[in-house]
Amino acid sequence: MRHTISVLVENKPGVLSRVAGLFSSRGFNIESLAVGETEEASVSRMTIVSTGDDPQIDQITKQLEKLVDVIKVSDLTGEKFVERELVLMRIAAEGENRSLLIELVDVFRAKIVDVAPKTLTVELTGDNEKIDAFLDLVRPYGVKEMVRTGKVALARAPREAKK
Amino acid sequence: MRHTISVLVENKPGVLSRVAGLFSSRGFNIESLAVGETEEASVSRMTIVSTGDDPQIDQITKQLEKLVDVIKVSDLTGEKFVERELVLMRIAAEGENRSLLIELVDVFRAKIVDVAPKTLTVELTGDNEKIDAFLDLVRPYGVKEMVRTGKVALARAPREAKK
Repeated sequence: MRHTISVLVENKPGVLSRVAGLFSSRGFNIESLAVGETEEASVSRMTIVSTGDDPQIDQITKQLEKLVDVIKVSDLTGEKFVERELVLMRIAAEGENRSLLIELVDVFRAKIVDVAPKTLTVELTGDNEKIDAFLDLVRPYGVKEMVRTGKVALARAPREAKK
Repeated sequence: MRHTISVLVENKPGVLSRVAGLFSSRGFNIESLAVGETEEASVSRMTIVSTGDDPQIDQITKQLEKLVDVIKVSDLTGEKFVERELVLMRIAAEGENRSLLIELVDVFRAKIVDVAPKTLTVELTGDNEKIDAFLDLVRPYGVKEMVRTGKVALARAPREAKK
């Protein structure tokens, strides 16, 4: 099963390498990983997507918590969270394909961020499902180059105030 | 100086840990890192932002190229490229602050992705400058939680066809 793990870490050299090493030493592949700053400058948040059964992920979560410079680990799977990913892709767009592509961009509320004689570069954000759907539609045009950020996620705020 | 390095790698366990280890063993901090799939399923692209002088970065680029499962390394610094980052943040939004915040979201073409009684969760994409400008404006409201993908970048397509 696919798990989304959110890890708060001190923003120090070596912490990323230790976290990635923990996964690889156990033979776990990291499907995607995004690291960026948080609301505190000295703290970064990693969002890791990995696949494994529940006991395996549980064990890795516990071992992550023991690593130096790791502050907090949350397995978001099963919780309610907002997930998003950003994709940039350069797509072949010559002749009538250009207008067909622009129509698709509009439907998906994507953005054209660069225009060249033979290609369009498109920015798209959304959850996995939306991004995969767009990719399936534009692949026949020819995706020349693509970069994805990997998924980031935030737990949803509780709907009701607790008494 | 800040460098943006794009690394194409085989999508295999261990490669992320080796790449991150190369930076940390030389005492380089990775400011942000994003790994995701590319146009080929077996290949991932990492976008790494790190700070160092040109000879240092040059050396690290050459050593990256020698690592197992690394296919191609490009230092995008100095080239023309499109860069984007995605941020999710939950911001306090009670009373009149809510409408003020919604106005800011409109101006920046951000999106509200979750609404709770006391907070709004906002999605924003852009380059560093845009994201920092938005953050400076919303910080006084109270940023409860934030996650950033780290920057991704694609080289711009050449403007003119070569003869």
